[in-house]
Amino acid sequence: MCCAHGAALLGHGHPAVAQALRQAIKLGFVNSFETEFHEELARRVCALIPCAEKIRFCSSGSEATLHLIRICRGFTGRNKIIRIEGHFHGYHELIYIGGQPPPDKFPENRNRPYLESAGIPSEFANLIIPLPYNDPPALRQAIAEHGKDTALVILEPVNYNSGCILPQPGYLELVRQLTKDAGIILFFDEIQSSFKKSSGGAQHDFGVIPDVCTIGKSLGGGLPLSAFCGRADIMDMCKPIGPVQHSGTFNAHLVPVLAGLAFLEEAAKPGFYPHLRALEVHFHEGLDRIINDYDLNMVAPHHGARFNIILGRRTPALRYEDAFCHSRDVMLQLIRECWERGLYLHDYGGSPAHHGYSIQHTKADIDRALNVLADVLKAMKPVLKKPCASRSVTRG
Amino acid sequence: MCCAHGAALLGHGHPAVAQALRQAIKLGFVNSFETEFHEELARRVCALIPCAEKIRFCSSGSEATLHLIRICRGFTGRNKIIRIEGHFHGYHELIYIGGQPPPDKFPENRNRPYLESAGIPSEFANLIIPLPYNDPPALRQAIAEHGKDTALVILEPVNYNSGCILPQPGYLELVRQLTKDAGIILFFDEIQSSFKKSSGGAQHDFGVIPDVCTIGKSLGGGLPLSAFCGRADIMDMCKPIGPVQHSGTFNAHLVPVLAGLAFLEEAAKPGFYPHLRALEVHFHEGLDRIINDYDLNMVAPHHGARFNIILGRRTPALRYEDAFCHSRDVMLQLIRECWERGLYLHDYGGSPAHHGYSIQHTKADIDRALNVLADVLKAMKPVLKKPCASRSVTRG
Repeated sequence: MCCAHGAALLGHGHPAVAQALRQAIKLGFVNSFETEFHEELARRVCALIPCAEKIRFCSSGSEATLHLIRICRGFTGRNKIIRIEGHFHGYHELIYIGGQPPPDKFPENRNRPYLESAGIPSEFANLIIPLPYNDPPALRQAIAEHGKDTALVILEPVNYNSGCILPQPGYLELVRQLTKDAGIILFFDEIQSSFKKSSGGAQHDFGVIPDVCTIGKSLGGGLPLSAFCGRADIMDMCKPIGPVQHSGTFNAHLVPVLAGLAFLEEAAKPGFYPHLRALEVHFHEGLDRIINDYDLNMVAPHHGARFNIILGRRTPALRYEDAFCHSRDVMLQLIRECWERGLYLHDYGGSPAHHGYSIQHTKADIDRALNVLADVLKAMKPVLKKPCASRSVTRG
Repeated sequence: MCCAHGAALLGHGHPAVAQALRQAIKLGFVNSFETEFHEELARRVCALIPCAEKIRFCSSGSEATLHLIRICRGFTGRNKIIRIEGHFHGYHELIYIGGQPPPDKFPENRNRPYLESAGIPSEFANLIIPLPYNDPPALRQAIAEHGKDTALVILEPVNYNSGCILPQPGYLELVRQLTKDAGIILFFDEIQSSFKKSSGGAQHDFGVIPDVCTIGKSLGGGLPLSAFCGRADIMDMCKPIGPVQHSGTFNAHLVPVLAGLAFLEEAAKPGFYPHLRALEVHFHEGLDRIINDYDLNMVAPHHGARFNIILGRRTPALRYEDAFCHSRDVMLQLIRECWERGLYLHDYGGSPAHHGYSIQHTKADIDRALNVLADVLKAMKPVLKKPCASRSVTRG
């Protein structure tokens, strides 16, 4: 239930992707220029993603956010970025700052955004304004204070990377309105959320349309493919029309492009999302029953084919620090016990991680997973019933 | 003779890569974790590249330089970067500054490094120190002035991206010595030069071993694969051993890794480099003869399976500004004329671009290319004989 961190929504070895690879062999597989397959993929994605008037492809999610941030800065002539704590937008210096500080570094994050890796020059943090998720006053204040210097507000509409934190009713609508009023680009990072619940992404699921977004993970059917897309006037900032560079030998490589077409073909089949939805309902009904029966201090929030497990609380988190109650040590024990019984959940070593299922999973697979979880959670009852030895930080 | 910008050293549709793709189909093709194939690829590359004690993989060249720069900064605790004008190291904010300014922006580049794209915050240029290539006094002065704040000296040992500018005798040795003395990491960007003349890269060809390097393009047999490698103590800065993050769902994707193994297998065959060398000699003997016969004001410097065409001068350039004599308009005319006769050379819209051949090219292909070039260059004699209407900038 790792599913390649969310990339394998078609599972492993799906015949449609195998067929795409065979087609790639026939075509010669390396071609650094656009083909009719690129055009077709662009056309199809733009028809699915509400904000997408134009689109460009890359290999990784990090590349997509990197290039799209540059475009937002070029378009607005501003450099600051308002971002949300807990949200993850790739491993690069433009945005790997202030997102997921460890609990002991969290209190100072809003004054001095946390550098999430050694080797990032500290002055880069001057351009980052981290905010709590689902906090209208904090957003209003940040835009009032920094709006004129701010190029973009970037967020994961579903914050899978810190406990599957969902937007509270009205929050995305407010972000949409305030960014529009302030001439700030609203950037949804849908690398993970795209295609997980619907082929329109979280912007479709919640009915709030950003100016631009990134998509990825499952887009390439498991092959390395990401994209950024959005309003035509913003996308036209790219050379050769505009002054912003987006280029690279391996962007939109033919092999992932063919696999991406295969993925979209599968995702468009009438049974695709109903099957994923049935798995979701079946899994969470089962897991919630186990949590309830054993009276465990844990919760499993979910959105589409991806879910998280937060230990130490019984309701979904609303913001990053709400999940500081999650004990990594206990989670690793849980994962080890599951692994020994044939169920693989992956931990990323910090915030509560995300897990999921693919179109190839069956209800019987979910039952098997639930049986393993029932065994493991029963055995771990003493530690999972305990009140949280929390390092939670209350908002100051 | 574009060869996917240098990625298709095996050409298009090579059977060894096709076999790797068939193997990928059998294995299920998506797997976000290391396999025995990753281990084998790492072991083999480390045996070939002189500086490589440890290695990590990414998809693109830009990702490789991005992550390795972060590691150099983490290792040294310094942030400045000494770079060489004309050299290209990827499309990201850490280094897409001060490399290839247009001629009219060139004079101020060393005081205010040129931002090579809109959307790059100008303060990022404060960390970049651009120098002319092959200029020992400039290097000595920069290290004397900025050495204590400088994390790395980065360069393309063969500057394919601005006219195939080669290091002059003793220059790389001097860089090696001065960086060592100053505790600065010497970073060779071998994304393009790796495997082009030998499987040890330019560091092998010139006998100067950097501390770290990036490799890519042809490494994946045409599939999206890059890597960074170097001294174990520097590479160990990465998590989980050290504090620098390098991660990503699509890094070291199984499909390019399998294709990479296929590439190395081909490149290790006894006839591989002799064949490429024979093509190189044959092509350049022929092209030089044409240039000579028609008395043209152009030159085609080369290193291994990749070459450039510089218009407006008869000797190879020694530094970036030496190629300002190159007329893009005339080059585009040349490329159009060749294209119409079945020979594809690619232009990147600035500095004199690189072209090349693959292992699948034959002497007969080279003869065909030479025949086209002879026709085209003969027809263009009037414009190519002209003295250069140069916008050259003499060093101040």
